[in-house]
Amino acid sequence: MTRLMTKALFGAALAGIAFGPAASAQNARPVVGPQVETFTLDNGLDVVVIPDRRAPVVTHMIWYRVGSADEVRGKSGLAHFLEHLMFKGTKKHPAGQFSNTVAELGGQENAFTSYDYTAYYQRVPKEALKTVMEFEADRMTGLVLTDDVVLPERDVILEERRSRTDSDPGAQLSEAVSATLWMNHPYGLPIIGWDHEIQGLTRDDALAFYRKYYTPNNAILVVAGDVDSDEVKALTSDTYAKVERRSEPPPRERPREPVQVAARRVELADARVRQPSVSRAYVSPSYRTAEGEDAYALDLLSVILGGGSTSRLYRSLVVEKGIAAGAGAYYGGSSLDDSRFVIYATPRPGNTLADMEKALDEEIARLIKDGVDTGELERAKTRLIADTVYDLDSQASLARTFGSALTTGMQIKDVLDWPERIRAITPEQVVAAAKKALLLRQSVTGVLESAPAGDRS
Amino acid sequence: MTRLMTKALFGAALAGIAFGPAASAQNARPVVGPQVETFTLDNGLDVVVIPDRRAPVVTHMIWYRVGSADEVRGKSGLAHFLEHLMFKGTKKHPAGQFSNTVAELGGQENAFTSYDYTAYYQRVPKEALKTVMEFEADRMTGLVLTDDVVLPERDVILEERRSRTDSDPGAQLSEAVSATLWMNHPYGLPIIGWDHEIQGLTRDDALAFYRKYYTPNNAILVVAGDVDSDEVKALTSDTYAKVERRSEPPPRERPREPVQVAARRVELADARVRQPSVSRAYVSPSYRTAEGEDAYALDLLSVILGGGSTSRLYRSLVVEKGIAAGAGAYYGGSSLDDSRFVIYATPRPGNTLADMEKALDEEIARLIKDGVDTGELERAKTRLIADTVYDLDSQASLARTFGSALTTGMQIKDVLDWPERIRAITPEQVVAAAKKALLLRQSVTGVLESAPAGDRS
Repeated sequence: MTRLMTKALFGAALAGIAFGPAASAQNARPVVGPQVETFTLDNGLDVVVIPDRRAPVVTHMIWYRVGSADEVRGKSGLAHFLEHLMFKGTKKHPAGQFSNTVAELGGQENAFTSYDYTAYYQRVPKEALKTVMEFEADRMTGLVLTDDVVLPERDVILEERRSRTDSDPGAQLSEAVSATLWMNHPYGLPIIGWDHEIQGLTRDDALAFYRKYYTPNNAILVVAGDVDSDEVKALTSDTYAKVERRSEPPPRERPREPVQVAARRVELADARVRQPSVSRAYVSPSYRTAEGEDAYALDLLSVILGGGSTSRLYRSLVVEKGIAAGAGAYYGGSSLDDSRFVIYATPRPGNTLADMEKALDEEIARLIKDGVDTGELERAKTRLIADTVYDLDSQASLARTFGSALTTGMQIKDVLDWPERIRAITPEQVVAAAKKALLLRQSVTGVLESAPAGDRS
Repeated sequence: MTRLMTKALFGAALAGIAFGPAASAQNARPVVGPQVETFTLDNGLDVVVIPDRRAPVVTHMIWYRVGSADEVRGKSGLAHFLEHLMFKGTKKHPAGQFSNTVAELGGQENAFTSYDYTAYYQRVPKEALKTVMEFEADRMTGLVLTDDVVLPERDVILEERRSRTDSDPGAQLSEAVSATLWMNHPYGLPIIGWDHEIQGLTRDDALAFYRKYYTPNNAILVVAGDVDSDEVKALTSDTYAKVERRSEPPPRERPREPVQVAARRVELADARVRQPSVSRAYVSPSYRTAEGEDAYALDLLSVILGGGSTSRLYRSLVVEKGIAAGAGAYYGGSSLDDSRFVIYATPRPGNTLADMEKALDEEIARLIKDGVDTGELERAKTRLIADTVYDLDSQASLARTFGSALTTGMQIKDVLDWPERIRAITPEQVVAAAKKALLLRQSVTGVLESAPAGDRS
């Protein structure tokens, strides 16, 4: 089950295109924005319906307002572990039956765990919507967890961790960078969990977490596709509406970061590294925690500075100076608490990581000193909005956009208004947001080297 | 209320001197070791009595098996906050009465909070022992906490934090180093708490913590001085023995560190810094967590490498090369979970922090490559044991040694056997412990610079 990349989660920008003056080129596309419909069942389940009638297909997703950052300390990996266990059987449906049914229908399924949410997804023919709703509603509270199913799955996750993280120096560095960036907040812990803590997760841990967080009043159902709100409402009466509210999850107040006062570096040298790199992650506000329009400005800053081959970092380091093989920036704005802004570069042979870092710093200093020009900003806006639109050609992305927004403290209106608010950002706002966010004292620089570590490192 | 320095906590080495072949020089000193007596009251209170009859004085300490590392995440500073609140009144004794009584007796008092314990201390004339026992037993469960007393005390702590940490770049760096060193364990959080979390501590938080952890079955009474076990036992019957057990504190299982794979650096530059410095902290086992004799070997390694002006680091960097104004090492072996081994140097004008770091690394490499010679090790043993003996000339240190050992997972026997086990360490054991502990990948290098930070740092 893949970890959701949070890039372009505000992709539902598409929804707003009908309102946007610059959107005429895309007007052939159906306008889904104003048709988003929502209702809430008596048991507290929020439902979002996004009609998308291009094909007789539906995307069905259930989102739980719980992620790895909601875990108790010492039990890292529990949210992700439960995600795996949700594919085991219930009293009504033995293990495998749900997945087999989706496969027989020619459908797709997946699930993902992030810091802030856990979600389950099926894409099936329209006629099968009720079937997947029955299955999904059933496993919301009906999961049967015995040591027989729990313990082997834990081994699966340990192996997943070994193959994805422990055998990959880049992934190891990335974990150490996160643990260093977040001095107090649980975003510093890996979503998959630390190896030694995964080993200690038990059936009771999984069951307690399940009972506390998997309840209709802690979930959001998102259905995108060839349906409307009335049809979905009717289908819920025999399925989700029958699931009883079984707990009141606590408020999602995680420990916050102190004021960060010292710049940090994390270095890993390993013989397996083929491409050295340097990256810097800055603690930055998210859409939810930012003041004013800072998150919108940071999204645009990431495009101007490092979004693709026309960005400043790429042009300067790769094209003009010819010292880097790659360079860029990204910003993960959709999180319940603060987020991060990242810049990175990989050297061409003959250039050092210190060269990369110097060149990255020069570009940031130049942007802050000389500002951003209007044409450059307009191109970034067009690009950012267009990227999200392309993304939304997929029904799954459409559903994801709303699900992730609603589980990270945003409202549907925020999604719909996003393109308009992006368009209103000024060059001064971009520079001001950069000045506030790109401070060394609230950053970690991660250095990945190919030189063998030697005995003592 | 001072934070206890953990240096030389195994000082009760004195106790074992009578057994040691090399201890004849100190034999004029009374041998207290074999006379340490212990008993446990029906309510679970452990009592340790250390007769020390040089003067008609007693040191009375009560130790709670709770420290800042036992706090719930998001409530940092709570253990220390409660320590302050313990000086407020009870139903029987209004605020100030206990302290005034100690002062009128010509006594001393203090209290301290560490990661692993919280302790309260009075030194009074022998005749007053029962009086302090009455007061201390009374406030074990009888504290009256209202917003009137809690909220102003919180401001006192915020001011304590501002004056000690937030206005001192060295202390700020030290907090950031700890937060970086510990990727998962709560030792990464400051004992005093993060400013924004102290601000959020309430009367209810303090009361819940008090009720959970302040109970006779979670405490150790240590009395050192001109008394014996029978006298202390008699005095408890009217005081501590009457306090009811009111909770069962949970097992002290804190989140453990993952395998650390990446070296980290933390840099702080501030115009107020007069003396730049570089230090490196390595995650190291403690006496409780070490395999075999590694903790004993690390204690000796810290003396050989950096204990005073005859140590390797001092002789090399300060005396021979003349590049440093100071250099040294220390090891904090008494903690319930893992600990740290630290090396540091401060440059003489004209020398850089990079010079310091290079010279520190060279000395470590040399020790690991060429080993430690027998004479050098013997001098370190004599010095380490003697230091603890001098320390124990104070009754308070004597009591502290046992209290801190017993609250960090050690036994009285471990304290008594300490000198003997130190004497048995071989040069090979020191080098092996250094090789295991002094790995860059499990370290943080802290850099404190006097250069102004400039706009962007």
